[in-house]
Amino acid sequence: MSTKTHSVVIVGYGGMGSYHAKLIKDNSRLKVTGTYDVLEARRAASQEDGYSAYDSYEAVLNDSEVDVVLIATPNDVHKELAISAMKHGKHVICEKPVTMNVKDFEAMTAVAEETGLVLMVHQNRRWDEDFRIIKEMYDKRTIGDLFRIESRVHGANGIPGDWRHLEAFGGGMLLDWGVHLLDQFVFMIDSKITSVTSRLSFILGDEVDDGFDAVLEFENGVTAMIEVGTTNFITLPRWYVKGTEGTAVIEDWSLTGRCVMQNREVGKVEPKPIQAGVGLTKTMAPPSEEATLTEALPKAFEHASSFYDNFADVVEKGAEPIVKNSEVRRVLNLIEHIFKSARTGEVVKDFDMYVPKN
Amino acid sequence: MSTKTHSVVIVGYGGMGSYHAKLIKDNSRLKVTGTYDVLEARRAASQEDGYSAYDSYEAVLNDSEVDVVLIATPNDVHKELAISAMKHGKHVICEKPVTMNVKDFEAMTAVAEETGLVLMVHQNRRWDEDFRIIKEMYDKRTIGDLFRIESRVHGANGIPGDWRHLEAFGGGMLLDWGVHLLDQFVFMIDSKITSVTSRLSFILGDEVDDGFDAVLEFENGVTAMIEVGTTNFITLPRWYVKGTEGTAVIEDWSLTGRCVMQNREVGKVEPKPIQAGVGLTKTMAPPSEEATLTEALPKAFEHASSFYDNFADVVEKGAEPIVKNSEVRRVLNLIEHIFKSARTGEVVKDFDMYVPKN
Repeated sequence: MSTKTHSVVIVGYGGMGSYHAKLIKDNSRLKVTGTYDVLEARRAASQEDGYSAYDSYEAVLNDSEVDVVLIATPNDVHKELAISAMKHGKHVICEKPVTMNVKDFEAMTAVAEETGLVLMVHQNRRWDEDFRIIKEMYDKRTIGDLFRIESRVHGANGIPGDWRHLEAFGGGMLLDWGVHLLDQFVFMIDSKITSVTSRLSFILGDEVDDGFDAVLEFENGVTAMIEVGTTNFITLPRWYVKGTEGTAVIEDWSLTGRCVMQNREVGKVEPKPIQAGVGLTKTMAPPSEEATLTEALPKAFEHASSFYDNFADVVEKGAEPIVKNSEVRRVLNLIEHIFKSARTGEVVKDFDMYVPKN
Repeated sequence: MSTKTHSVVIVGYGGMGSYHAKLIKDNSRLKVTGTYDVLEARRAASQEDGYSAYDSYEAVLNDSEVDVVLIATPNDVHKELAISAMKHGKHVICEKPVTMNVKDFEAMTAVAEETGLVLMVHQNRRWDEDFRIIKEMYDKRTIGDLFRIESRVHGANGIPGDWRHLEAFGGGMLLDWGVHLLDQFVFMIDSKITSVTSRLSFILGDEVDDGFDAVLEFENGVTAMIEVGTTNFITLPRWYVKGTEGTAVIEDWSLTGRCVMQNREVGKVEPKPIQAGVGLTKTMAPPSEEATLTEALPKAFEHASSFYDNFADVVEKGAEPIVKNSEVRRVLNLIEHIFKSARTGEVVKDFDMYVPKN
């Protein structure tokens, strides 16, 4: 094993940039050796945090001690910054959404290929434990084959910050949270997306979407429902999934949740009709108690390594990246078609850039 | 006020037929004077319950003492039974779904018009208190203008009974529960439906749908999401609604629920970022406590009268029916287009038989 430490400069020392600095502190193979930000206040903050601040991006590029540029700026300048970094011999870690469309990302990957340098997008929510529990259920068929997977993220604070309100900077919730939730599905489900239907919401009067819902149909029969809202004063569960043998829920980030399954040891037990509104219903009565089993959620799927360690392995040993650029490109293409479905009010088909995993 | 009591014969003395008998006991203007069922066992059950059982439908039709025929048979014979009843001078109350398509229903309403008799469909879930609370919120703008209304009914018992599994009898959950949930929207929202998108589910291997989801877009900007499931071991809330000033939920038939609104007395309060998976989020952090108000659900909208009293008023005084045949026809047409959307996988537009309420 190499014991070299890769020198990382963080470009854009805002919320995410400083969060990277904190996380990388715990990593033995990467080391933050400086930052660069266009704002004086953020350069000062960086120095307070103990990271020297470069005066210009050129200074970063021309510093031969810098191995890696980590880009955590607004989305509109990712492409330009990444390309110049690679042209100056630096590997690149880039925040998500890496670009606002496929074409811009392809310009970046072309330079990565030319230069032989590593370009990896920080799709960190593949490591979220809630997602990894669902992936485990999907892979291991804990409640049978999952055929409907509903992934929701609800807030009530509107769109945060400044540039996230503006289209030119790649604002809006589809590009902010949507890219994570879509990336999780693309990583989990090895099947072509056959159609997408979507609606964007513009409740708050911003020029960008303050939320959206999208339904993806996969060739293997899975339906995914993805919803992001920033005007939801009451939240629906983070995950609600149906399998051929039961249902599971993860309520929130605390990972409260459960699986409820048919009890196969017990024959068919007729439920007792209940009063429902002005009518009686047997169909919608709770199943009789002995007819179901309630169990804890399974342990989460474990990645072979952390994002940063995987990045170091890719740089040092040409290891397989966990976040593949082909997947990132597929998600950007999906986002373009979600925008298209929302704009036209139609189901969009025959668009997926699917590459089978094996 | 007339004090005449209308003699009602219930045709089809199954679950719904006998439930009608129980409810009509409490009504002073209708009286169940007999029943008819093709099954010997159900004729015996009727006699045990104190209602004399006719030997044949002809005997019902030829009994001049009978004012009203109440049809609670499987769906495929509603049309034929209703038409002969009206041709024999009887008013008709018919269970839902009144028919499986618009054409059959139009054959029934044509006879009602010819004969001048009353034909009224038992869309009883317009009287459900959970629905009436939502209608009150919609009408009175309790949480601002409602723009997204999600109506779900989740069970885990599969499709109940016998004929409800069969297409020829009008089985399936879209025709069973769907007709109620759609009827509620058509009654509540005075606006044209501009599009519908739908998916049916066939998890249980029946020839009919064991559930469905449908999204309706209305011209006035409301989006309605309707979902029925019979393989949901965990339920999502019965109602989840978003207004321009807050969110409301009704969890279940017990009417547990609440409204959460922005507190307009308090200026913008920045929420504290929370740890969410491997990332931090301010967007999806709960709003700070002082920024919101939680309130009880409002009292329910009250209809001017019960279904049976309204029926008696229509018969006696030509009063306006609460369940109008134009609305019933509109819902059947909507159901036909939900089937079409599910079959084609496309958004269906320009189909709504909308008639403005005033």
